[in-house]
Amino acid sequence: MSEVAILGVGMTRFTRQAARGAAALVGEAVREALDHAGLRAADIQASFCGSALATAGAGQQTLKNVGLAGRPIINVENACASGSTAVLEACAWLRAGLCEVALAVGVEILSDIRGPLPTTDDWYFQTGLNLPGWYALKASRHMHEYGVTRAQLAAVAVKNRRLAAENSRAYFQAPVTLDEVLQSRMIADPLTLLQCCPKADGAAAAVLATAAFARRRGGRPIAIRGMALTSGTAVFVAGQPSESAGQRAVLAAYGQADVEPQDLDVVECHDAFSIGEILYTEALGLCAPGRGGELLASGATSPGGRAALVNPSGGLLAKGHPLGATGIAQLAELVWQLRGESAARQRPQARLAAALTMGAGEFELDANACTVFVLEQPHPT
Amino acid sequence: MSEVAILGVGMTRFTRQAARGAAALVGEAVREALDHAGLRAADIQASFCGSALATAGAGQQTLKNVGLAGRPIINVENACASGSTAVLEACAWLRAGLCEVALAVGVEILSDIRGPLPTTDDWYFQTGLNLPGWYALKASRHMHEYGVTRAQLAAVAVKNRRLAAENSRAYFQAPVTLDEVLQSRMIADPLTLLQCCPKADGAAAAVLATAAFARRRGGRPIAIRGMALTSGTAVFVAGQPSESAGQRAVLAAYGQADVEPQDLDVVECHDAFSIGEILYTEALGLCAPGRGGELLASGATSPGGRAALVNPSGGLLAKGHPLGATGIAQLAELVWQLRGESAARQRPQARLAAALTMGAGEFELDANACTVFVLEQPHPT
Repeated sequence: MSEVAILGVGMTRFTRQAARGAAALVGEAVREALDHAGLRAADIQASFCGSALATAGAGQQTLKNVGLAGRPIINVENACASGSTAVLEACAWLRAGLCEVALAVGVEILSDIRGPLPTTDDWYFQTGLNLPGWYALKASRHMHEYGVTRAQLAAVAVKNRRLAAENSRAYFQAPVTLDEVLQSRMIADPLTLLQCCPKADGAAAAVLATAAFARRRGGRPIAIRGMALTSGTAVFVAGQPSESAGQRAVLAAYGQADVEPQDLDVVECHDAFSIGEILYTEALGLCAPGRGGELLASGATSPGGRAALVNPSGGLLAKGHPLGATGIAQLAELVWQLRGESAARQRPQARLAAALTMGAGEFELDANACTVFVLEQPHPT
Repeated sequence: MSEVAILGVGMTRFTRQAARGAAALVGEAVREALDHAGLRAADIQASFCGSALATAGAGQQTLKNVGLAGRPIINVENACASGSTAVLEACAWLRAGLCEVALAVGVEILSDIRGPLPTTDDWYFQTGLNLPGWYALKASRHMHEYGVTRAQLAAVAVKNRRLAAENSRAYFQAPVTLDEVLQSRMIADPLTLLQCCPKADGAAAAVLATAAFARRRGGRPIAIRGMALTSGTAVFVAGQPSESAGQRAVLAAYGQADVEPQDLDVVECHDAFSIGEILYTEALGLCAPGRGGELLASGATSPGGRAALVNPSGGLLAKGHPLGATGIAQLAELVWQLRGESAARQRPQARLAAALTMGAGEFELDANACTVFVLEQPHPT
């Protein structure tokens, strides 16, 4: 078993529920994660709260209502990777011996924000580009370089909406057809409305512990075999960068875990826009560079496919994307898969899984943060 | 030597300089810290940016300009303890073996905020209490319980303004008299204007490394012997809490370092308001509970006094308090003291030092975060 394990996970449904407030969302996710871990709030020794847009003190204000005041609480922010960064910080504390049991929670309330989400004052945002625009540029370049088609892009949404129909926590639970995706309103060419994730409100939580604690407690711990965090190089070069923040994070995490992409049974990756799943399945090595569209179209990443099942939760496109909660929700789905608890969307005999979360990664050169985790079910069922 | 050491520190002057922008302030502090450590940006493997009020991506936006893009960058927020929490996270990564050399930076721009700083929507802020009001309540209670006098409170500002006169990085560099402090405008009885820290803009940075790296590099590393983070219990009880967030952090850090308060040569503690220094010298055990006013009045914590020299930098009252930068600036002063680099405000033969930083700790029951660090000069000069 690796040094650190996930003992339990929880999450709210991702939907429009701003009026409930962050404390209620966090409370629901944390209570489920504690129950799933078979632990009580008193067992948690330190907490990490990830949110991209929350105001100061988000963790303290929400966690004191679930009995976690008095102990260390740290708020972390890394754009859309805020939640997965909170998990990474919990792992750092566990590995450092600063605690034996830690909580990571991510939360975001987006549905009450009118218009586009706030961006930085970097020159590229000042030009008028926004997040769909950046991903659209990536999609156009990928189509030009590798022949990815509009139908392949749209098929990402079709696959993920179909999977989300089996996930009661997803924002969208109705399947859509390829025509519906292609015919939906154009947002940023080539990305139509149904290829853009919805603004959602939600929270997700994970209880983590040292391997020694996990062994003592029993239960069904999922081992963290590899974890990595990178940021973009912020350097513009002609054409594509030779190695993206995502690729570097993948290489580091796979190296720690000593795994190859073909070993993976399940993957959750950052499909904030349809092109995201294509780019990140390539970064994860599920196919050669540029072949992500074909991989998807072949059905290899769908249920029963020959490669890893990708985004069984429905992904960001169908499950929704409350920024700070997303990275932990991805890990939650992987934990359920590895514990055989994913019901109708279960990948049979899932043993090894990976999650890739991209923070402000609408272009890889300047990603704020990319996290990759490799999880393993230590005792195959 | 302990497992983790500070190799170098840097900070801007704390003053009104909002127009320079966060990137310029961070750049100045980081370059000084790297020079002080004898390292280059390329040596830094991970960075942690603390800010209480910055918008998303503060670390990435500022650190890419000093050559730190591409590697892990994590933003942390813990109110006024954001900077010291960034140091703590760097230490966690170093102790966890996630990197060998890390940077912590804190930054805040406050002078362009009109009126009171933003607070949470907790009921006690909704009553109209603000930060000076909370500390004023603490001061009134302390006067009632222990007989602390208005003159003792005011004398904190006199001592710290006198020390700041020797610190070219301080906001206020002119000494003040006891009468001037007592006669300045009343802000929240008993706290007059000169007993409240000024809104300042600034940044501070620290380069940290594993003990193994520090030994290989030579230089003058300062060992971190103890570090602790607590939060308030958020539970109201009659009278004073039996043990505050500050006291719990002090006990934990002293326990790790195996030191007693009388061993300390220098202390930096959170005098955002004059009563703060009195409360926190008590929490640090420099005197018995309730005796902080007498300790100060006796001159024991002034230059040449019998106890630890307290707030040689001028403290928050005179040096200024750019929230996220404060915790690292406190550690910077301690590092300079322990390296014998504090010029006219140097405590001779300083060997052991402690810093206490209180995040949203205007009342201890509900502090968002309190950090305590114990630093040691490993090779007495």
